[in-house]
Amino acid sequence: MSPSPTTSQPLDLRRAVAIGTPKAIDLWLDVVDDPRHRSDQLAELTAAEHARLGELMPVAVAAEMADTLALHVAVDTFRAVPTRRAADVLAALESDRAAEILRALDPVEREPLLAAVPAEHAIVLRDLLTWPAASAAAHMAPDVLTVDRSVTAAGAIAQVRDHRAKLRQDAHIGAYVFAVDGDGRLEGVVSFRDLVLADADTPVAELVEPDVITIAPLTDQEEAARTVVAHRLLAMPVVDDDGRLLGILTSDDASDIAEVEATEDAERQGGSQPLEVPYLRASPLLLWRKRIVWLLVLFVAAAYTGTVMQAFEDELEAVVVLAFFIPLLIGTGGNTGTQITTTLIRAMSTDNVRMRDVGRVLRKEMATGTLVAAAMAAAGLVRAWTLGVGGPVMLTVAVALVAIVLWASLISSVIPLLLRKLRVDPAVVSGPMISTIVDGTGLIIYFTTAKVLLPELAGL
Amino acid sequence: MSPSPTTSQPLDLRRAVAIGTPKAIDLWLDVVDDPRHRSDQLAELTAAEHARLGELMPVAVAAEMADTLALHVAVDTFRAVPTRRAADVLAALESDRAAEILRALDPVEREPLLAAVPAEHAIVLRDLLTWPAASAAAHMAPDVLTVDRSVTAAGAIAQVRDHRAKLRQDAHIGAYVFAVDGDGRLEGVVSFRDLVLADADTPVAELVEPDVITIAPLTDQEEAARTVVAHRLLAMPVVDDDGRLLGILTSDDASDIAEVEATEDAERQGGSQPLEVPYLRASPLLLWRKRIVWLLVLFVAAAYTGTVMQAFEDELEAVVVLAFFIPLLIGTGGNTGTQITTTLIRAMSTDNVRMRDVGRVLRKEMATGTLVAAAMAAAGLVRAWTLGVGGPVMLTVAVALVAIVLWASLISSVIPLLLRKLRVDPAVVSGPMISTIVDGTGLIIYFTTAKVLLPELAGL
Repeated sequence: MSPSPTTSQPLDLRRAVAIGTPKAIDLWLDVVDDPRHRSDQLAELTAAEHARLGELMPVAVAAEMADTLALHVAVDTFRAVPTRRAADVLAALESDRAAEILRALDPVEREPLLAAVPAEHAIVLRDLLTWPAASAAAHMAPDVLTVDRSVTAAGAIAQVRDHRAKLRQDAHIGAYVFAVDGDGRLEGVVSFRDLVLADADTPVAELVEPDVITIAPLTDQEEAARTVVAHRLLAMPVVDDDGRLLGILTSDDASDIAEVEATEDAERQGGSQPLEVPYLRASPLLLWRKRIVWLLVLFVAAAYTGTVMQAFEDELEAVVVLAFFIPLLIGTGGNTGTQITTTLIRAMSTDNVRMRDVGRVLRKEMATGTLVAAAMAAAGLVRAWTLGVGGPVMLTVAVALVAIVLWASLISSVIPLLLRKLRVDPAVVSGPMISTIVDGTGLIIYFTTAKVLLPELAGL
Repeated sequence: MSPSPTTSQPLDLRRAVAIGTPKAIDLWLDVVDDPRHRSDQLAELTAAEHARLGELMPVAVAAEMADTLALHVAVDTFRAVPTRRAADVLAALESDRAAEILRALDPVEREPLLAAVPAEHAIVLRDLLTWPAASAAAHMAPDVLTVDRSVTAAGAIAQVRDHRAKLRQDAHIGAYVFAVDGDGRLEGVVSFRDLVLADADTPVAELVEPDVITIAPLTDQEEAARTVVAHRLLAMPVVDDDGRLLGILTSDDASDIAEVEATEDAERQGGSQPLEVPYLRASPLLLWRKRIVWLLVLFVAAAYTGTVMQAFEDELEAVVVLAFFIPLLIGTGGNTGTQITTTLIRAMSTDNVRMRDVGRVLRKEMATGTLVAAAMAAAGLVRAWTLGVGGPVMLTVAVALVAIVLWASLISSVIPLLLRKLRVDPAVVSGPMISTIVDGTGLIIYFTTAKVLLPELAGL
């Protein structure tokens, strides 16, 4: 992942629009072929430049470009260009991409566009929009190539040619041809490649693979995406309860879903609510809303550390050097716990750890925790010695570190597994949450250890 | 992402092997079609069961299954079965998958296998193994379909049929056909679909798209994977400096690379070194090694919190209630910083934030930090009031919270950007690291504020 050298682009979109000829736009499309750079440059145009660009670029070219743009840039572009033009481009897009863009628009922006799209296409789009946004069906391409299983390979190719208009540009959608019965029920799949490689008079029935991995339309998008990737499919049919083929989920849709989910998980792990818009487009007020909820929850949860400290006020006054080690001890507990939860949650979200592995996880983490505790106790002894706090406090710090590391290991392995058991996504457990839980309990462990080990606290 | 119901599987692999007929294995393959469940069950077989399974399963079926298994399960299976058999399956696999498995084996395990593979195939595999593991070329499939651009569509289909042995099972590899000149230099790409849909006597030259996105063999695997996804390609040609076609990187390879990279980033963010093996296979000793380095680094870094506290020992003895708020204040600073770095690092690793956005990021984060600081100061006042610490300490806590939140916002937005500037992967900045940095500086801010605001500390 290296920084993209946008500065070295010799021709940018603004200059191409200023030149104002279709040839300049063509040249720009040739020179800037990375969709990420195109998105960047498009995002910086003014409304007037957008309108000018709309006149210069043929509908088919605009649709091809809109297919690979970052979604939020595509959506903004649809907002910026006149409705008539936007509807033409929308009609030229793959239906799943068109629906994705419509879904991101407000209903008041969406309706005029849908009204301007040809009626039969608008029906398809409205149908796609009825599926829940997090379902597999919301991401499916309904324009699927189907053939009758009674024909020959040559006949199937002829049927496919009749539908070539459906194919547009997306190689994923054209990868498989589906065999269906008279009622549209899926009977199997045949690859384009097999159609080509077979003799012309081979019955399609011989080429059809009946054993197809399918998915129900309401399946969660993340589960559906993982299935596409696990089976290394180019596209997976979405099939209703009656076995009817509704559309396909392609592997590039699956990649998009996986990336969005990984971003949301990363944000949750960092103790925020997921942003839902690209970072640079989030206003400070939105960032604040997404962050302040957890900050306040954690603040309230951490407030009991004050109560714990107040409870041990006498001990603290008697041996004020105990306070020196508070940040170090609770920090180490939080770090230990954060390491475990992030590794464990990632392993769970990639299906490498399941509920039945609870025993193995606990044994592994407690064994690891014992090794970690030993190393940290040694480090704690060294640090306490350099601060010159005397033998009993040195011992207190070392013993407390062992207990805190083991305790942090235990709760940070149990909590994600427990949440999964309760059917809550364990990704809600953030590093900050684990740190907060360990902070207060760590203080109790520390002061209790001190009371036991320090002679001057014996009477308190 | 729901827990997989493995317990409801009616036939498991161990029972199928115990029955001991090829039909039982066939039935198992039919019943258990999810590669994740197959991997689980295969991983639990003993060496004797592996050998028995090897006798029961035809080579082609074994190769098809090995293609989708989890890598570590596939590698273990190759270790468990006799060399002769393993070499047969290896030869039947796609070369990129075979190389991936060989790369995971020790050289002493690898050599006998390579020696048992047919010579011309072994040359291809050895060539793949020479590329660095993190390069695009290490993941490429060298078995590419090529045609001469001077032929017609029908002629191209005939050429492709001659090479059908190259195609094996992978639909990604067969998605495009590449036009090359006499020296193997890439001239363009033609899709299978276009070959089928064109009239038989159309010259291939008319169907060829000369404007192909390619990548150099030594490109970093993560950058290469992101390019495949951004352009929505099924496969991207890997081309050397002379324009020669070396192989292709397919979109399922790109998905695998993206998943591995996301896991490594998640582990780094949690303050561990990446594990490199699946979690359940990591021994406590390995987990300890991956974790203890950062724990000790952070412990040493956090040790200065003790020095800071010692420097303010007189203040702490004079107003011991100041200690009550230490975990709360430094915890809030750490949480604020962790929220920012995780969001920012994810946005950078998905190309949503680049170096040129430094100014926007800083303005956005400082504006957000101001809003957060106001809310946290209010929360801090409430908490200090409930602990009954009196007006001056309440004010100290509120002012310190504002300063700590703003400070945490500043350093946690600057550090990732600075690392990117220095060409260090910003994903090395973990939540624990930010917390540690904020802990000590937060204490200095807190005690300095107290010295200014508390009359009883005026003389110290």
